[in-house]
Amino acid sequence: MKVVITGGTGFIGRMLARRLVARGELTAPSGNLETIDEIVLFDAVAPAHSIDGLDDRVRIVTGDIADCDLVRSLIDRDDVSVFHLASVVSGGGERDFDLALKVNLTGALNVFGACRARSGRPRVVFASSLAVFGGAAMPRVVGDTTKQTPQTTYGATKAIGELLINDYTRKGFFDGRAARLPTIIIRPGRPNLAASSFASGVFREPLAGRTCLLPVSLSTRMPVLGYRTAVEGFIALHEADGAALGDDRAVNFPSLSVTVEEMIAALRRVAGNRPLGDITPAPDPAIEAIVATWPVETEWTRAAALGLPVDADVDGIVRAYIEDFVDEQD
Amino acid sequence: MKVVITGGTGFIGRMLARRLVARGELTAPSGNLETIDEIVLFDAVAPAHSIDGLDDRVRIVTGDIADCDLVRSLIDRDDVSVFHLASVVSGGGERDFDLALKVNLTGALNVFGACRARSGRPRVVFASSLAVFGGAAMPRVVGDTTKQTPQTTYGATKAIGELLINDYTRKGFFDGRAARLPTIIIRPGRPNLAASSFASGVFREPLAGRTCLLPVSLSTRMPVLGYRTAVEGFIALHEADGAALGDDRAVNFPSLSVTVEEMIAALRRVAGNRPLGDITPAPDPAIEAIVATWPVETEWTRAAALGLPVDADVDGIVRAYIEDFVDEQD
Repeated sequence: MKVVITGGTGFIGRMLARRLVARGELTAPSGNLETIDEIVLFDAVAPAHSIDGLDDRVRIVTGDIADCDLVRSLIDRDDVSVFHLASVVSGGGERDFDLALKVNLTGALNVFGACRARSGRPRVVFASSLAVFGGAAMPRVVGDTTKQTPQTTYGATKAIGELLINDYTRKGFFDGRAARLPTIIIRPGRPNLAASSFASGVFREPLAGRTCLLPVSLSTRMPVLGYRTAVEGFIALHEADGAALGDDRAVNFPSLSVTVEEMIAALRRVAGNRPLGDITPAPDPAIEAIVATWPVETEWTRAAALGLPVDADVDGIVRAYIEDFVDEQD
Repeated sequence: MKVVITGGTGFIGRMLARRLVARGELTAPSGNLETIDEIVLFDAVAPAHSIDGLDDRVRIVTGDIADCDLVRSLIDRDDVSVFHLASVVSGGGERDFDLALKVNLTGALNVFGACRARSGRPRVVFASSLAVFGGAAMPRVVGDTTKQTPQTTYGATKAIGELLINDYTRKGFFDGRAARLPTIIIRPGRPNLAASSFASGVFREPLAGRTCLLPVSLSTRMPVLGYRTAVEGFIALHEADGAALGDDRAVNFPSLSVTVEEMIAALRRVAGNRPLGDITPAPDPAIEAIVATWPVETEWTRAAALGLPVDADVDGIVRAYIEDFVDEQD
C-alpha cells in the first residue's frame, strides 16, 4: 500500500514517515494490515537537508496543495492512506488570511476530493488543533463535545476541516479521522510562525546554549503533547476501529496541562549539569493575545478509550528530545 | 443604501423583500438608519409569477452564485447590506453532494468575499439552520453553546458558513450575523426537497383541499418558527448591536417545540368550518432518517436578550397563513 503525508517534510511529517518506515505496515482500505511499499512526503518546499531514518520507499514531492491536479496525481492508488498535515499555522494565518484559506481550506478540499475519487474508502487522518476552541463562551476545560468558536483563521479552517472529515466519512467517500492536537513539543530547528512556537523554544534554545526570548508569562498554562506520543497517536488513530469513532470523527488527543514555569522546572531537572542558555521575558502582545484564546486543559476520555498513547510527564518529553536531537548532534 | 438578498425569490426572500420595501430603511455601514433605494433579489431561477408587495426599487437578477464575478457585480456599493439566504436544502444536498458544496460553500465564499471587498464593513445576515446540530452526542435541547455535528451535507455547509461569518467578522472584513433557523412554517406553493417540507405541507395541503401524505409519525416533535416571525427576526438580527453579539455571531432563533399531532390540532382549531383535505400516513424512511437527527427543542435566551421576536403559538402561525395565502387566493 501507499501512504501520502501532506506537510510531509515538516517536523511531525518526517517523524511520522520515519516511524512508518520502521513499522512497515498499516491497515489498508482492504481492512487488512498491508506492507507499505511507497511513501510520498508532499510539501510546499524541499527540505534543506536529507531526512534521516528513511529509505528508497520514500519520495519527496514539492508543490502547491491548492493545485487540484497535482494533489490527485499523488493520491493515485486505491490502496492508499493519507495523513493530511499540511497547513498554514496560527500566526501565519493571522498575517495572511488569503493564504490560510487557500492552503487550509482549498488544500483540504483538494486532498479530500482526491481521496473520494479513489475506490476502496481510504483512511484519511487530518491534523486538527485545539485552536478550534476559543471565544467568550469557551469552558476552561475543553472536551470532545465542546462547541468550536475559534479565534484565529487557522482554528476556523481546522474546525471546517473537521466538519468536512465528518461529512465525507458519513457519505462513505472515505474513512476519515481528525486528530485534535494540543501544542506539540519539543520542535527542533528554527522558531516558526505558530503562536505556540515559544513552548518548544523554551526548551530548545537553552539546551542549544542560546537565550530564549519568552513572549508569554511564566504562569501561562497550556495543554502540551510530546512529539513521540503525537506520532504514535496519529498511527493509533489511523488503526482505530471506525465503528468506535462513531459519527464524530475528531478526537481530542491526550495532553498534559502545564505552566511555562513547570516546563522550565522540568528542563532544569532533566538537563542536570548541562549548561543552559538564559530564558528572558520578552512579552509579545500579539502572541499573548492568541494564546489567551486557547483552552488551558483538555478532557480526552474518548482518546483514552480508543487506546491513544499518553505522555507520563514533561520530564520524559525533555529526555526524548535530548536523546533524539541534542546528544545526536554532539 | 442597497440591500442584496441571495435566494431572494424564494419564500423567505420575497417576504423579507416585501417587509423591507414597507419598512423603507435599515442601519447602514455608516451606523445610521438610511433609506433603502435599491433591493436586488438574486436567485438561480426567475420566479414564475411577479411578486406582490414590491416596487421599482426592487430588481430580480438570476444566475449562478458560484460565479464570483457575478456575485461581486451585485454587491457593488459600499452602503450595502446583504441577507445571504441562497442554499441547496437538506434533501437536495443529500441527493447531490457536489451541488451542495458548490452552492452552499463556494457560494458563501463568493458572497462573503464580495462583502469583504467593499469598504465600510457592511452587515451580512447569513441564514443558518438547526441542521448544524445532530449526531450521537447531541443533547435533546440545543443551545447557542451546543457543539455542531451535523448529519447532512446541508447542515455541514451551514456550520461552515457560521465559522466563516465569525472569522470574517473577527477580522473586521464585515459585520456578520448568522440566524440559526428552525423549520419555518407555513410555506405556500409546492413541496420542496427540504426534509422538513412536510411541516408546511401538513397545514398547506389540507387547507387547499388536497390530501397530505405525511412522511413522519404524528409523535415527531420538532422546533418550528412562523414565517412572519422569521422575517421580523432577520431584520431584528440585522439591526442588533454588534457588541451584544460578541465573538459568536450565530444565534438560535426562538422556536416552538411541537409534535405533528399538535400541529394538526392547531390546524383544526383555526380552520373552523373550512373543508380540509385528508392527512394520510405515508412513512418515508429517507425523510424519517434525516428528521431523526434533528434536535426536538431549542434554547434561545440569547435571541430573547437581543430582542428577537417569538411566536406565541402555532394557532397564530396558521391564522397568519390563512390571512396571507388562503383567503387572499379566494
